[in-house]
This record gives sequence, structure tokens and C-alpha cells, in this order.
Amino acid sequence: MATSDTTRLEAFSDGVFAIAITLLILEVKVPDHAEIQALGGLWQALAHRWPSLLGYLISFATIGIMWANHHAIFIYVRRCDRPFLLANLLLLMTVAFLPFPTAVLAEHLPDPETRTAATMFYGGVLFLIAVAFNIVWWTGIRDRRLLGSNIAEAGVQTIRRYRMGPVGYAVATALALASVWLSLAIHAGLALLFARSETGAAATHKT
Amino acid sequence: MATSDTTRLEAFSDGVFAIAITLLILEVKVPDHAEIQALGGLWQALAHRWPSLLGYLISFATIGIMWANHHAIFIYVRRCDRPFLLANLLLLMTVAFLPFPTAVLAEHLPDPETRTAATMFYGGVLFLIAVAFNIVWWTGIRDRRLLGSNIAEAGVQTIRRYRMGPVGYAVATALALASVWLSLAIHAGLALLFARSETGAAATHKT
Amino acid sequence: MATSDTTRLEAFSDGVFAIAITLLILEVKVPDHAEIQALGGLWQALAHRWPSLLGYLISFATIGIMWANHHAIFIYVRRCDRPFLLANLLLLMTVAFLPFPTAVLAEHLPDPETRTAATMFYGGVLFLIAVAFNIVWWTGIRDRRLLGSNIAEAGVQTIRRYRMGPVGYAVATALALASVWLSLAIHAGLALLFARSETGAAATHKT
Amino acid sequence: MATSDTTRLEAFSDGVFAIAITLLILEVKVPDHAEIQALGGLWQALAHRWPSLLGYLISFATIGIMWANHHAIFIYVRRCDRPFLLANLLLLMTVAFLPFPTAVLAEHLPDPETRTAATMFYGGVLFLIAVAFNIVWWTGIRDRRLLGSNIAEAGVQTIRRYRMGPVGYAVATALALASVWLSLAIHAGLALLFARSETGAAATHKT
Repeated sequence: MATSDTTRLEAFSDGVFAIAITLLILEVKVPDHAEIQALGGLWQALAHRWPSLLGYLISFATIGIMWANHHAIFIYVRRCDRPFLLANLLLLMTVAFLPFPTAVLAEHLPDPETRTAATMFYGGVLFLIAVAFNIVWWTGIRDRRLLGSNIAEAGVQTIRRYRMGPVGYAVATALALASVWLSLAIHAGLALLFARSETGAAATHKT
Repeated sequence: MATSDTTRLEAFSDGVFAIAITLLILEVKVPDHAEIQALGGLWQALAHRWPSLLGYLISFATIGIMWANHHAIFIYVRRCDRPFLLANLLLLMTVAFLPFPTAVLAEHLPDPETRTAATMFYGGVLFLIAVAFNIVWWTGIRDRRLLGSNIAEAGVQTIRRYRMGPVGYAVATALALASVWLSLAIHAGLALLFARSETGAAATHKT
Repeated sequence: MATSDTTRLEAFSDGVFAIAITLLILEVKVPDHAEIQALGGLWQALAHRWPSLLGYLISFATIGIMWANHHAIFIYVRRCDRPFLLANLLLLMTVAFLPFPTAVLAEHLPDPETRTAATMFYGGVLFLIAVAFNIVWWTGIRDRRLLGSNIAEAGVQTIRRYRMGPVGYAVATALALASVWLSLAIHAGLALLFARSETGAAATHKT
Repeated sequence: MATSDTTRLEAFSDGVFAIAITLLILEVKVPDHAEIQALGGLWQALAHRWPSLLGYLISFATIGIMWANHHAIFIYVRRCDRPFLLANLLLLMTVAFLPFPTAVLAEHLPDPETRTAATMFYGGVLFLIAVAFNIVWWTGIRDRRLLGSNIAEAGVQTIRRYRMGPVGYAVATALALASVWLSLAIHAGLALLFARSETGAAATHKT
């Protein structure tokens, strides 16, 4: 089967990432007058929105950094075939899904009875995103037929460190049974961890 | 009448496809506390969202694969005139409409009284999308004046297999009268069928 | 003051047009069970959504064709300065506003008491879009300093026919006092009128 | 650490800016029939939406002009590394957040008891956007290693005038304690001030 270049695939993916990340804010609801009365003021009602704000922060950072790393894949993968395109669509399906578990998390984080389930659901979707990202990566480098020429093996190895993503998210999800705060701290930490230097290492081969 | 190139038409279409596919998640509603109480927990309430999740899956796959095949058209069609632009706008109008029947389907799939109508409405819109896609394709290859040079007739023939799209969606829609599950299974099957190898065959002529 | 090229201006505008056109569907609400009960079935309740569907159709066609004609401007205007950029931002502000009057129209079209006001509000916004479009056009061709070289005067004259846009929309808006249906028919007619051949004529100079 | 070019970073940022600016309209709610009854007509109910319209205007202008100035940065910054990418992500996080404080402002501006807090919250977010913009700019020009060649020092100095942004927004926010109207007037004034000539001066070096 033949291949084509990745320009429009990247543009479409950029669009989905950009929209998913921007839709997150729609889940933060404006405090109404009853809520303000009950809590004693608008500032208090806004502070009461902290679960939404926390969800916005973690999900925005996760999608944003996922986008940056998605970008890094295309430093190596320069051609596109149907299996790669479908793997990429699977990844986008999980990324575009994230506003929903983020809203579930924001709604239920203050409630001791449902917060564990909400955090595990949220972590489970992050786990699926990480799995899908690895499928995209493996589909892209399989047989090296979609790779550009002049790709250093060391660079391809570097990005392989994403294999740890699903493990990290699975651990964070399971730990929600012990403490949702620990679980969310690991999610934030994983975002920061993956924020580091992939494109840096990768782009060396380009400049 | 004269023609222009297709770059900005493709960019605009990519935008509409990317937004329509990402808006689908806004129709999945967060379970509220009354619902969780009634169903016995957050996990149960999330599981109760299966019609929304099923709708999300089928519509996401359908739009995503439609995008990939829309992309494939422009391997052949390299120029753009007003009739082609308007045909493309008609296609985008049907694609951007899909979040609405998806939400109707998700809302009514659990209800035995309304699920047949909801599934037929959903299938009817998929049928219109397939018809619009064929109009775009035929407008694009008519007289061969918008085609790029060096286009193999075999490639143009390959993509003609989309003629079967409207028939498939019409059959799936009609079968909802017998069983909505069979109808939805055919929709999912058609998405997988059209996920296969068009660009592969097409891109041969490009590389 | 110096100028720069229009690539990113076009990309940003494409984004706003694509999002505004796709958000229109969010204003079409899923019929709930009470409504279905009252109207005697889901099909009846969907048919009862005709004002929303009509609004979707007219607004989608208007924004889509406005996008195509916006595209046509950049066949002539090849450079960008701050006044042009701000004029373009003004146009985007009116285009991005359209989902609101569309929703107002859809909500109030069935109500004899409020439908005239709703139609005039909708028409008034279309009038503002047409005015803003003309401001963009005049800012772009003023002094001919932003125009590309080799621009035929005839082409520039052709696109000037947009001057009739504000007049047409003003007439349609005023006629809503006599009949909202006549007013909406003129809006649809204007969309079709502007759908004709600008880029065709324009692109002649490019090929 | 190595660098890569900024094309996809700009495209992703354009997407987020375009979506955030277009989502603003979703916060303007259609007047319902009770509201129209109470206020004596649809026109009166639409006029009653002035706080939403004012919020739409100021936020649209602010994001739009921020986009134009973001664009201006990339006339100088021609390469991208991880710190710059993360600084840019921080800016997008604040920009994508703006629809929320805009909605809070629109909801509470008519209420004398909560309007001061709402205006300060809104101004506070504009302050954060301005701070993030400066972080992007400083990360971009630090050590001059991401700058293009042939960049005139005068141009780099010009854009430095954004340092005044955070100060202006902080003053406007604090003045809300005295008068929310004065505060909003300053926000509008700052948008107009920053609407002036950066790209003009900048692009000189390009043409």
C-alpha cells in the first residue's frame, strides 16, 4: 500500500487538539445568584469553583503537552498510510473525549462519596490517551517505512520513553483508591515530566 | 469560468471537520447527583451514559473517516471553481449538522417508543452526508477540468466506489424499522469499510 | 507604515469562519420527552424544530458564502497593514456574533408577537456583516498599496458589486415589518446571489 | 538543547485564539418568553443583554488584538525550543480561560453588589494574559538564540513596549474598586492602544 505526506493530517490533528483544549472552559459554570447568596459573595463563589479550575489546569496542561509531543512524532514520521491515519484518529478520539471526564471530575471532586470514582474515570481516560499515543508511535515507526531519511536511531529511541506513559497513568489511576489528591498530583507530575525535551532531542536531527 | 487552487478550501474544510468532530463531546452530559442517587453510584450513572458513548463512537468514526476520504478527493482535484466550492459547502453543512442527530440518538436510544425514529433520523442524516460527498466528487471530476495532470484513470475509478455510500446508508436507515441495533451495526460497519485504502491507492500516483 | 503578507491573517479568519459556522448547530435543541408527548411523537417534535433548521440553513449559507468571498478578496489584496487587520477583525466580530441572532430567530419565529423583532434583529446583524465586509474591501484596495501586482482593474471592479450587499440586507430587514417570510426569502436569495462567480472572474488573473 | 521552526506552533496558537474568540458568543443567552413578558418586548429584552454585548465587544477586541501581537512576535522569533513552547502554552491557557470571566462579568455587571468583584476578576485574568504574553516575549528573545537573523535591534525594542501591559491591566483592575465603568473603559482603551502599529514597525525588516 502506498503512502502520502503528513501535512493535512497534522493540520487536522492541530485543529482537534486546539478545539478540545479550548472547549474545557465551557465546563466551568458561572456562579448564579443563589450560590453567591449561600456562600456569602462572588469571590467566595468563584473560589468554590476550585475543582473546575484544577480540572482545567491539569487537562489543559495534559492536552497541550500531548500536542507538543504529537508534533515531535512528525519529526520522524514523514509519510502517512491508512493504518497510521486510523491510529491517529483513535488518539484524537480519546483526546476529544477528555472534556467529559474533566467535567465529571470537577463536579464530583468536592463530594467524598463520588470523588474516588470520578478521579479513576478521569485517570482511566488519561491512560487510554497514553495507550493511543503509543499505538500512533508504534504504527509510525513500524518497519521504518514511514520514517524520513536521515533519522538517527538515537532520536527514535528517545521518544520510545513514552512507553512509560500508560504505566504512569495506570499507577496514578489505581492510587486514587488510596487518595484522589495523590492521584491528581501524579497526573500533574506526568504532564510536567512529558513536558521535557523530546522535541529538543528530536529537532537536533533537523537543524 | 476560471479556477483557483484548493489550498484554502481544504484548510476551511479541515476546520469544519475538526470542530464538528470535537463538538460531539459537548452532547455527553455529566450525571447529576439525583441521577447518581437513583442509579446507586457514579460508575452506574456513567455506564447509564452508554447511548451517548455509542453515539460519540459512531459519529466520531464516521466524521473522521469522511475527513480522510475528503482528503483523498484532493489528490485528484487540484483546482476549484464556484460549483465545486458550493458542493463542498453543502457537504460541510451536512457534516456540521451531525452533532444534532447524534444527540437525538443518544437521548432516545434507551426509549423503546422513540428509538426507531431517532435511529432513522440519524441514519437519514448520514445518508445525506454520503449523497453530498458524491456530489462533491462528481462536481470535482466532471469534464476532468479540475483534475490535476498525470491522474491515472484507475485511481479515479477507485474512488468511484463511494457511489455505494448512499445505498449503504439508505439500507441501514430502512433496517432500523426492523432493528435499531442492526441499523447501528451497519453504520459502524460502513465507517470501517470506508476506512480502507482509498488514499493508499490514490497516493500511488503521487509518490 | 509597513506591510506584511496575509498568510496568517487568512488562516486566523478561516478558523473563525469555520468555528462560527459549526457552532450554529449547538443552538438546535434536542426535543425532550415532555415535548414529544405533547406533539405526539419524535418525528413531530423534530418537524417542530423547523425554525431552528431554517435558521441553520440561512446562517450556514450566509457564513459559508461570506467565507468564499472573503477568500476572493485575498486574490487582490496580497499585503496587510494594521488598518486592514483591524477592519478584518471587525468583520470577524460580526460574523462570530451571528449564532446569537440565529438562535433568537429560531426561538421566536413561531411566535406572531415577537417574530418581527427577531427577524429584524437577525437582518440587522446581516446588514452589519455586509457593511464590515465592505470596510474590509475598501481598506484593502485604498491607494492600491496592499494590492498584488498584475491586478486587472476589471477584477477589482467586479468585486465592487458587494456595495449592493448592505443595501440588500437593509431592504430585507425593513421588509420584515411587512412580512418576516418575505424578509427571510430575500436573505436566502442574497446568499445565492453572492454565491455566484466572484472567484471565477477573479481567479482569471491568477491562472 | 536544540530548536525547531515555529510553523506548527503558530498554527496551533491561531486555532486556540480563533476558538476562544468565537466561543464568546455562546455566553450570550437568548431571552426567554418570561423575560420578554417582564420587560415588555423582545427589543427591550435584547437591550437588557447589554452587559453580555459589552463583555463580547471588549473580550473580542482584546483577544483579537492579542492575536495580532502574538503574530508580531514571530516576525522576530523564528525558532522554537521547549521553554518557549511551554511559555506559549501558558499564554494560551490564560487566553482560552477568558470566556469564563467574560461570562461572570456579563452576569454580574447589572448587580451593584457583585459588579466590583466581577470586574476585578475579569481584569485580573486580563492582567494574567498580559503577564503570560511578556513571558512568551522574554523567553523568545532571551540570548537571541531563537531570533531570526537580520533582526534590527530597534524592532525588538519596539515590541518591548508590551512591558506596560501588565501595569495597565493592574491599574485598571484596582480602579474597579472606585468605578467599574472607569475600569472597563481602561480595558477598552488598552485594547485600542495595543491595536497600534507593532506589525507595521516589525514588518519593515521583512519586506
